[in-house]
Amino acid sequence: MARPTKPKLSTEAIAVAALSLVDAQGEFTLPQLAKTLNVTPSSLYNHVSGKDEIIELMRGRAMAAISLPSGETEDWQATVRQIAISYWQSYSQHPRLIPLLTSHTVRDRTTLRVYDALAEAFARAGFPPADRLHAITIIDSFVLGSAMDAAAPKVVWEADESSGAEFTEALAAGLDVEQRARRSFEMGLELILKGLAQTRR
Amino acid sequence: MARPTKPKLSTEAIAVAALSLVDAQGEFTLPQLAKTLNVTPSSLYNHVSGKDEIIELMRGRAMAAISLPSGETEDWQATVRQIAISYWQSYSQHPRLIPLLTSHTVRDRTTLRVYDALAEAFARAGFPPADRLHAITIIDSFVLGSAMDAAAPKVVWEADESSGAEFTEALAAGLDVEQRARRSFEMGLELILKGLAQTRR
Repeated sequence: MARPTKPKLSTEAIAVAALSLVDAQGEFTLPQLAKTLNVTPSSLYNHVSGKDEIIELMRGRAMAAISLPSGETEDWQATVRQIAISYWQSYSQHPRLIPLLTSHTVRDRTTLRVYDALAEAFARAGFPPADRLHAITIIDSFVLGSAMDAAAPKVVWEADESSGAEFTEALAAGLDVEQRARRSFEMGLELILKGLAQTRR
Repeated sequence: MARPTKPKLSTEAIAVAALSLVDAQGEFTLPQLAKTLNVTPSSLYNHVSGKDEIIELMRGRAMAAISLPSGETEDWQATVRQIAISYWQSYSQHPRLIPLLTSHTVRDRTTLRVYDALAEAFARAGFPPADRLHAITIIDSFVLGSAMDAAAPKVVWEADESSGAEFTEALAAGLDVEQRARRSFEMGLELILKGLAQTRR
């Protein structure tokens, strides 16, 4: 006779459950996580070393969605653009995960492979090592900030009776635009790519 | 005889206590807040209408630190730069507040005055209303993403044995640079300002 199977604990199940908690409340604790998974806190330690590893697992899940250009391409801007857009898409689904990730050292391999691709693209563009890291950081910061904007409520700002005409006009014309956040992101990304390209000439 | 005075509950005390909770755990609840302030949850409602208002109070505190250029200045880039830098400084002190704020409609007057100043600067630069909102959003997103980077641990990334030379070189040359985050932020801000200026020519 088959016995009812107990759902098997795995690093994947742990990461999925932790991500749900972070999406809902911006944080997770190991006791909460154990409760959600219906296991004892100590059994989590059979799979992960602790909270830091769980954070890296969540990072890896979010980063696994990023599509890297296949093979060698000559156009470094196309590489950075493709990574930035899929990075933005993935993180705009999990805005509350962002500050948890940025407050921990990146160690996850799936994530490091994305930074390898960015570094390789900026090296191809001619950025010397220290400037390469600045270029990576500028793209990173803009993507993460824009991902939070994409997760904002439709009415991002509500002007009041003291608001100036320049701002209320901008809200009237721009807030309801279809794919507002995506357009702002793409416009900013192109400005940054063009600006980076100009510094290499 | 003087009686021991009970600390007076105020909107300011509520905002300060909520911000401490958010800094520590990325979130706050009204029962937690009441416990921290040593009052009953219901007494909070004598001062605020609920969680949304407390979030706007926290936003107002973070935004009050932003220095707006005094008087009319011709140079819209100088206006945007000054706002962006003090905005970045203020939010890099409270990275975990950021996604809580971006997930709520902006209604706080202290905050709206900053957006008024940005909208006025971009109007002076010649941006029509809808593009003005995109320009504001691009600056906003870059500032918030960069503020989280400024709050990151000193070792932002840790390369592993699979990391490519382009990335490990960049880390070796750039990670330990003094004021790394500030330099990346300022470099990106200048790229964006220059790019925005070029779209108006």
